[in-house]
Amino acid sequence: MPHLPTSDGRQPWRAHVLTLFPEAFPGPLGVSLAAQARNARIWSLDTTQLRDFGLGKHRQVDDTPAGGGAGMVLRADVLGPALDHAQNLNPEAPLIYLSPRGTPLTQGLARDLAQGPGVTLLAGRFEGIDERVIAAKGLKEISIGDYVLAGGEVAAMVLIEACVRLLPGVVGTSESLTTESFEMGLLEYPQFTKPRDWDGRSIPDVLLSGDHKKIETWRREQSERLTADRRPDLLRSRGQKPT
Amino acid sequence: MPHLPTSDGRQPWRAHVLTLFPEAFPGPLGVSLAAQARNARIWSLDTTQLRDFGLGKHRQVDDTPAGGGAGMVLRADVLGPALDHAQNLNPEAPLIYLSPRGTPLTQGLARDLAQGPGVTLLAGRFEGIDERVIAAKGLKEISIGDYVLAGGEVAAMVLIEACVRLLPGVVGTSESLTTESFEMGLLEYPQFTKPRDWDGRSIPDVLLSGDHKKIETWRREQSERLTADRRPDLLRSRGQKPT
Repeated sequence: MPHLPTSDGRQPWRAHVLTLFPEAFPGPLGVSLAAQARNARIWSLDTTQLRDFGLGKHRQVDDTPAGGGAGMVLRADVLGPALDHAQNLNPEAPLIYLSPRGTPLTQGLARDLAQGPGVTLLAGRFEGIDERVIAAKGLKEISIGDYVLAGGEVAAMVLIEACVRLLPGVVGTSESLTTESFEMGLLEYPQFTKPRDWDGRSIPDVLLSGDHKKIETWRREQSERLTADRRPDLLRSRGQKPT
Repeated sequence: MPHLPTSDGRQPWRAHVLTLFPEAFPGPLGVSLAAQARNARIWSLDTTQLRDFGLGKHRQVDDTPAGGGAGMVLRADVLGPALDHAQNLNPEAPLIYLSPRGTPLTQGLARDLAQGPGVTLLAGRFEGIDERVIAAKGLKEISIGDYVLAGGEVAAMVLIEACVRLLPGVVGTSESLTTESFEMGLLEYPQFTKPRDWDGRSIPDVLLSGDHKKIETWRREQSERLTADRRPDLLRSRGQKPT
């Protein structure tokens, strides 16, 4: 029963992944918050096997790089029809290619994507994809970080999980979302819980004081100190509109 | 048969994940390159269920944040013994907590970790973990990007996949590794493959010229142009030693 509306009548946020390894899904999206939200039809997950669009009796999907070099490149005449198929299923969703050359994924970008109808994600393998399909289909390239993966599948899961937890009804209280890392342009303050003393270490007195104003001030100072120590680049970009 | 040596006598690179959701694994690590390399015992994957270290008959692992606030915090007196257990299994592996407050994962950091004996990874859930365990156990905090996930599981998979593909014998030719994004501090040049003409778009003539010197120059220029357009921050940090 794909894409039934949720109990309040909203259409689910639709994630669709084009991949040579649909069996990798749902993986981490099949547990906890993401699984509960999917069961509640807040979002849906579909995969398309790229090999179904492969050529000839061997369903070939790749070939050697023009100009030489190692590895194999996914063919434009395979990806093009596969992307057309996916776009027909969710015409308003952005077409995204997960690539280390892409725009870095940020909390702001995840929030923008979560506010849309969903995402259609192309997960590459091998040396990459034929550049012409990026231009022809208007693929938006997004990178989850400055490192190289064996394939785009785990990157697709990261993007989906970052978006899904921002959908209405997924995380219990909106306070959880607004005090966490990046939402104020700062890293999150340190957390403590019971027991009061552990391994010769105590919970800071201020957190046990019951003085909410003092606690708020302490947490803010801790966030600012942590950010200045670890990620001064985040402080420099504060005040700029998040993308 | 855990941790048998590979056919050339090397010990496998050992990934061990502490998690409340071991059933999320191997997920994307169970396909393609990573799966083949695991079958070849180039690396191994183990998980430990944090709830096995939970307290009381309900195996409680978390409690409310000291000082108030939304969500739940993983207890130090649960995580501490779990981390001790994991460290006994692979004493030389770094203890890593996946957290948006951490040092950003880069290709250089993945390479450093791939050269070691493996990694012990703590995947959090909820609002985070009691800060005292980070100091007491010397956890290294690593972030896969500037966004917030529902849990550390998919981040652990990203870190593992980035490392595994760098292990000797996993990717076919070393050329594939040295020309890709970030290895020269640049984004990778565009790739093309057959057919020569597709959707009114042709493969650039230079790539069909057979002149390897010209092709190399063109690719280098394309990499530099792409990086300057999309990620001038990478150009600014070139020449600095990657961490």
